[in-house]
Amino acid sequence: MSTDLMPNRFTPGEATIPLRETELIARRDNVLGSSYRLQYRRPVHFVRGEGMWLYDPDGRRYLDFYNNVPSLGHCNPEVNAAMAEQASRISANTRYLEPRLVDYAERLVGTFPQELNRVVFTCTGSESNDLALRIARLVSGCEGVIVTSHAYHGTSAATAMVSPNLGDAVKLSPAVRMVSLHGPAGVSEKQAAAFFEEQVRSAIADLNRRGIGVAALLFDSIFSSDGVWVDPPGFIAGGVKAVREVGGLVVADEVQPGFGRTGKNMWGFELHEVVPDLVTLGKPMGNGFPIGAVVGRKASMDRFGAAARYSNTFGGNTVGIAAADAVLTILYRDRIKEHAHVMGERLRAGLEHLAIRHPGVRGVRNAGLFFGIDIGLDGTGAAGRRAMALEIVNLLRDDGVLISTTGANEDTLKVRPPLVCQAEHVDRFLEAIENALKKAAAPV
Amino acid sequence: MSTDLMPNRFTPGEATIPLRETELIARRDNVLGSSYRLQYRRPVHFVRGEGMWLYDPDGRRYLDFYNNVPSLGHCNPEVNAAMAEQASRISANTRYLEPRLVDYAERLVGTFPQELNRVVFTCTGSESNDLALRIARLVSGCEGVIVTSHAYHGTSAATAMVSPNLGDAVKLSPAVRMVSLHGPAGVSEKQAAAFFEEQVRSAIADLNRRGIGVAALLFDSIFSSDGVWVDPPGFIAGGVKAVREVGGLVVADEVQPGFGRTGKNMWGFELHEVVPDLVTLGKPMGNGFPIGAVVGRKASMDRFGAAARYSNTFGGNTVGIAAADAVLTILYRDRIKEHAHVMGERLRAGLEHLAIRHPGVRGVRNAGLFFGIDIGLDGTGAAGRRAMALEIVNLLRDDGVLISTTGANEDTLKVRPPLVCQAEHVDRFLEAIENALKKAAAPV
Repeated sequence: MSTDLMPNRFTPGEATIPLRETELIARRDNVLGSSYRLQYRRPVHFVRGEGMWLYDPDGRRYLDFYNNVPSLGHCNPEVNAAMAEQASRISANTRYLEPRLVDYAERLVGTFPQELNRVVFTCTGSESNDLALRIARLVSGCEGVIVTSHAYHGTSAATAMVSPNLGDAVKLSPAVRMVSLHGPAGVSEKQAAAFFEEQVRSAIADLNRRGIGVAALLFDSIFSSDGVWVDPPGFIAGGVKAVREVGGLVVADEVQPGFGRTGKNMWGFELHEVVPDLVTLGKPMGNGFPIGAVVGRKASMDRFGAAARYSNTFGGNTVGIAAADAVLTILYRDRIKEHAHVMGERLRAGLEHLAIRHPGVRGVRNAGLFFGIDIGLDGTGAAGRRAMALEIVNLLRDDGVLISTTGANEDTLKVRPPLVCQAEHVDRFLEAIENALKKAAAPV
Repeated sequence: MSTDLMPNRFTPGEATIPLRETELIARRDNVLGSSYRLQYRRPVHFVRGEGMWLYDPDGRRYLDFYNNVPSLGHCNPEVNAAMAEQASRISANTRYLEPRLVDYAERLVGTFPQELNRVVFTCTGSESNDLALRIARLVSGCEGVIVTSHAYHGTSAATAMVSPNLGDAVKLSPAVRMVSLHGPAGVSEKQAAAFFEEQVRSAIADLNRRGIGVAALLFDSIFSSDGVWVDPPGFIAGGVKAVREVGGLVVADEVQPGFGRTGKNMWGFELHEVVPDLVTLGKPMGNGFPIGAVVGRKASMDRFGAAARYSNTFGGNTVGIAAADAVLTILYRDRIKEHAHVMGERLRAGLEHLAIRHPGVRGVRNAGLFFGIDIGLDGTGAAGRRAMALEIVNLLRDDGVLISTTGANEDTLKVRPPLVCQAEHVDRFLEAIENALKKAAAPV
């Protein structure tokens, strides 16, 4: 396992790469910082995108079941038209009055529980989480942050320091504490909730004992990098309550689960019936345009705003707002979350059917179109399960289907198709994964 | 003075505001986080932009001599066309191969001294400075950062903590040290260099004495928020040398001065004949599209990349790259920096002429089209000078010209027109500022 915990990465020499890509990789290595990683044993090379598909220079198409930014499909023409139209009119910043910013802000907070009625715009999910940490620390007067044991919350200095998923080489903050999501296998739903609360309470006690105090419980509401965890609904409630008792803020990171991906709900936290203090947004918000936001309660936002100005040059510029506004319009007009729910049910039924026939599928978890599929044959250890998951990801890539891995042991397939996927795409994916499972399970 | 040191902000009740704007401000306050600030006593309201001009809903136009993002003019049609064309083709991320990213990266590093040959893309100047701090801290193994006494380097937690310009309410890092730019007035050029070096050496000594060590000297190469300082060329060299002696990295923040604004040079640091270890980019890079970058030496980038992956979902996406590529093409094709130099000379000559007739102009500093104009009548103290500068900014706003203030006492006018400004715009600005000076200096 690489030090940075990204098994699905390109490693030079591991596989045979065509000359055209070898040359491009060499040029890339010669000019881009080495912190860049390519995905897959044989990296993919795309020059065109449309809806669910990405095309390589030879016109071969790949079914995208991985990218959660273009939720409304690659190169969505309506979003692009809105962006182009606004770019030709004005790209205003937030220090000038412009009605479109206010119109969209009102629409956006209207999709949240009424307590969450203030918004600040950013450009990326990392900026959103970074700002949420600033707000939580200023409001609470404390530094401590509680995250899950494999959490990823961003690339900025402050968010990377609370992202154990980045691996040993990226230093964690002395003020961060990690909590496990689940106790031993086979615990009841009630036990899972108790286990989580107990972990949070013990993190709080430790932070207080050291004089650090608690600023926030920061959690991705579908626990994407912990392996995609959904059930039991409400299992985080006790932990949330414990954090609030000591004045900490509850921050839901909706950068991945937000904007309808979880199917029935617009926001992942709704599944747990928790109303956070701050909610962070990013990725699909502009279907590819760099825009994010922090939505929160007035009291916290006012407390922060009274002390600190926050001026993000590009955050809230009207071109990004136009893209985000078009996204929100389409999400509601086309009933995208309801559609994601229906497609999620179809995919889940297919995977469960597959699990009966294929011992390599150990479990399936999902909310809407965010899936975690646990991989591994009985009797193989952690390394074997991880290797099998990685093998399936690369077999699918060679078969023209894009996914990746997640989880503590990276033996869970991470499947997140654009929300506009149709039955035919789901069926194509099921066929492809069945073939990959057969090959991966066959004796070499 | 407000706690956040932003005098040129809207304060409710200070001036009479038309009903349309009052209503929009009320809606805005009811949905945006209170960390937002509007500029000017009577906020401006824009619905259209074109070239050097911004238009309010009544069609009244304002000459933009302030915004340094749309360097090639508001709503530049060529940049917008490049963006729209790429958005209709593919918005690829950096984990897939795509030639356009590599092509642009090669072009971009080609504009730097040859030692600076690696690039990592971000979405904002804040993200660029934040990443530079991460790299400098990992490479040096130390935490200490030396900045100028009124520096501003961004909105992220880590950059805000090294930005004394944000005011007392935003906590500074225990690892930051501030250095003054200039000693007492009237020192020689040689003395200015010695003064800066002495300040840096004493910051280093203090950081080492406390076991914090030195990660970086981080400086905006035109010292925008310190009041726009240019002369004497090379005055930072001794400080740079001192930081390198102890293993610290030299980071030039080119978010404001970069991409030809300083006239003769593409990058502000070139004036000082210093080759930094890392250079951070943002604002005008995509003429409004959110894109930034860190350009650096291979050794530092490799050291960071070996330990840490850096995956910025939107950073380096091909739509932003297309916008940035179009910007670079136009900058060279239309000889924009040479043009900025010529227009800067015209503006400077006009201001110097004005200074002879108007005692309110105490000094003019510039490189290309980045100007600092010191304001204040003899015998008035700091508060009087600040008030006069603020009055001029607001008189200009009412006359349809946009600028703002900067500097330790915020008594310096900050003037940064888009680089495509023509002689007629310079002359219009000179006429407007002369009128404003007369009014501001007149007894009430």
